[in-house]
Amino acid sequence: MALVNEYFLRLTESYLFSDIAKKVNAFKLTHPKERVISLGIGDVTQPLCPAVIKAMHDAVDEMADSSTFRGYGPEHGYDFLREAIVKHDYLSRGVHIDSSEVFISDGAKSDIGNIGDIVRWDNTVAVTDPVYPVYIDSNAMIGRGGTFSDGKWNMITYMPTTEENGFEPQLPSERVDMIYLCYPNNPTGTVLTKEQLKKWVDYALKNDSIIFFDSAYESYIQDDKIPHTIYEIRGAKKCAIEFRSYSKTAGFTGVRCGYTVIPKEVMASTIDGNEKVSLNRLWERRQATKFNGASYISQRGAAAIYTPEGKEQVKKVVDYYMGNAALMGEQLRSMGMKVFGGANAPYLWVKTPNGTSSWKFFEELLYTAGLVCTPGVGFGPSGEGYVRLTAFGKREDCIEAMERLKNRG
Amino acid sequence: MALVNEYFLRLTESYLFSDIAKKVNAFKLTHPKERVISLGIGDVTQPLCPAVIKAMHDAVDEMADSSTFRGYGPEHGYDFLREAIVKHDYLSRGVHIDSSEVFISDGAKSDIGNIGDIVRWDNTVAVTDPVYPVYIDSNAMIGRGGTFSDGKWNMITYMPTTEENGFEPQLPSERVDMIYLCYPNNPTGTVLTKEQLKKWVDYALKNDSIIFFDSAYESYIQDDKIPHTIYEIRGAKKCAIEFRSYSKTAGFTGVRCGYTVIPKEVMASTIDGNEKVSLNRLWERRQATKFNGASYISQRGAAAIYTPEGKEQVKKVVDYYMGNAALMGEQLRSMGMKVFGGANAPYLWVKTPNGTSSWKFFEELLYTAGLVCTPGVGFGPSGEGYVRLTAFGKREDCIEAMERLKNRG
Repeated sequence: MALVNEYFLRLTESYLFSDIAKKVNAFKLTHPKERVISLGIGDVTQPLCPAVIKAMHDAVDEMADSSTFRGYGPEHGYDFLREAIVKHDYLSRGVHIDSSEVFISDGAKSDIGNIGDIVRWDNTVAVTDPVYPVYIDSNAMIGRGGTFSDGKWNMITYMPTTEENGFEPQLPSERVDMIYLCYPNNPTGTVLTKEQLKKWVDYALKNDSIIFFDSAYESYIQDDKIPHTIYEIRGAKKCAIEFRSYSKTAGFTGVRCGYTVIPKEVMASTIDGNEKVSLNRLWERRQATKFNGASYISQRGAAAIYTPEGKEQVKKVVDYYMGNAALMGEQLRSMGMKVFGGANAPYLWVKTPNGTSSWKFFEELLYTAGLVCTPGVGFGPSGEGYVRLTAFGKREDCIEAMERLKNRG
Repeated sequence: MALVNEYFLRLTESYLFSDIAKKVNAFKLTHPKERVISLGIGDVTQPLCPAVIKAMHDAVDEMADSSTFRGYGPEHGYDFLREAIVKHDYLSRGVHIDSSEVFISDGAKSDIGNIGDIVRWDNTVAVTDPVYPVYIDSNAMIGRGGTFSDGKWNMITYMPTTEENGFEPQLPSERVDMIYLCYPNNPTGTVLTKEQLKKWVDYALKNDSIIFFDSAYESYIQDDKIPHTIYEIRGAKKCAIEFRSYSKTAGFTGVRCGYTVIPKEVMASTIDGNEKVSLNRLWERRQATKFNGASYISQRGAAAIYTPEGKEQVKKVVDYYMGNAALMGEQLRSMGMKVFGGANAPYLWVKTPNGTSSWKFFEELLYTAGLVCTPGVGFGPSGEGYVRLTAFGKREDCIEAMERLKNRG
């Protein structure tokens, strides 16, 4: 009989958001008149900006006429978008990336999930804890996780990021092949300075590791000292792959467009050590075989973000969300709560009072304030004792949520 | 050092379309005044139909307003599209598929490339020869190909489809775990009747194999005796996964939307044979981890194909291309050439005269008629002695191409 990939059977079902939904539904049944405010799921709420809308309408119109119709595009994306990225996201920060190092896709999640295809199944993996679960699950699916017990995979190195270490993960004590970093961080909303990130690049260069750098929240950075791309760090072009997304930058969660940068110098070795292979070339081959390019309409929408109007409009939306984050951070602190993140990221990482567990505090917020958050422990063992609030809600909801918290019994 | 997936290094570069492009460029340089007509690459040329254009404009407008804005959609696709598929593509043919068995994606190529994630790396694979290269390359990337020499992978079973066997591949003499079939076929343009396809379903049921059925050209079927879905064959819901694409159905090559059907009864076994696992559940998990849904705008466009106007408009375009196929088939035959396919598929599989090689005949057509085809040998060893012509061109180009062929020296 055809055999199943048994690594899939080792995955635990992720019940986090369905468990949240069940608890919220139970609350609604017993409190039919109360309006629940959700600051839980990390999805945007503001509409696409006018420049993007116009570009997408224009692209749809092009598809209606045989003289402008576009069929298959390049698997790695159109040059108009690759070149805009090179210029606006990199050159503007003094970073030289060639457009052939930029791969457009239907979103960062696909690329983060699929990138493991091009490296050997038994490379070792390190992740921060708490963490975006895709890094772990996509590796576990191909066997890099080993076996799962007590909330952890035995072959994965977990690097706690907690209040105790100032949310700066410590370098692994043993060498690892693949390191996943997400900064600005989901879920903690914290950032790394250039000096902090440099330690990771130096580690990767010294150990011939590869850093998989998830930069989905880059546009939320306010502080000039925080790097916008890992390639601002000297040497990173030899050891880092960077993932970018338009989902949070410009509200593209439903439009689907993102990109991945793989500098040509990033190498992995054959097992006999005799050959170093450029991962850029392998990803090009992977995408040409298993992908047919992102939607032309989505790519035109993404390119509009780089026009002067687009930049201004997108910044307004980011400012709006960061206004939510500032407002909530200030209010929560005034209530005596300990809040991390939210200054350069759209997430607030809130410490539960008096050592309450994440789930217990989740229920407390739901039942005393009709407020939905995400229990931190859902992102990993070191998330216990925290909840995540997102700044992606509507302003009036953020204000009301804070009022309710203040006034709860 | 991080190790590379060495299976990638066993892949030969695919030079087919770049070799064609080089030869065409060389011709153009020496024949600057001649207009080259391409009937080579399988991309569509007609614009999207008005119903799709309208639906996509409406969807873009929804994204411009916070009351109708759509963020993350379900990874497996929106219900409005899954339900339209169940009703119009299956129920209308007496086939009962549950909407939870339908997975919307950014296109069939992605799904065909990624489906191998959920089964064990050492399952055996059979493909027809000639063949769409993605079936082979995607398996070779994970190790199912073995090693490549003399134009073949040693662990893959090739099933020749040639004039001698009436383009009906023969059942493998040894059992295989995974069988790729594409009908209507790319590149030969031939089809299988229900009786012929039933042999494959019976084989799969008897041998506990899984059929990966690529049905991208289904909408080109004209003959009532040809099955539109493999699920018209009794038992197929226990052993077949079907891939569908809107690329050729409705000109979506640049829009990116397709879907995969995995009936819940399709199972694969654990290696100890103690457990049978539903592949539907594993694919759901794979997509939830490594994919974030197809573009909302593309999904709305796809749903419009199922409206009465959409159906009519899409059929008109299919009829147009099939008119090209009929015209070219008739003309080529009147010139004494042997032509297969083209009756239920947008491809003509033309036998080269007097045993000429595929590439030699390619050059002959280019230099005597300024006409670009695809050499059949580019699709596999059994394609030698054929060329593929596509019916996706403009009518006037098809007519002129045939005139040129008739009048060449």
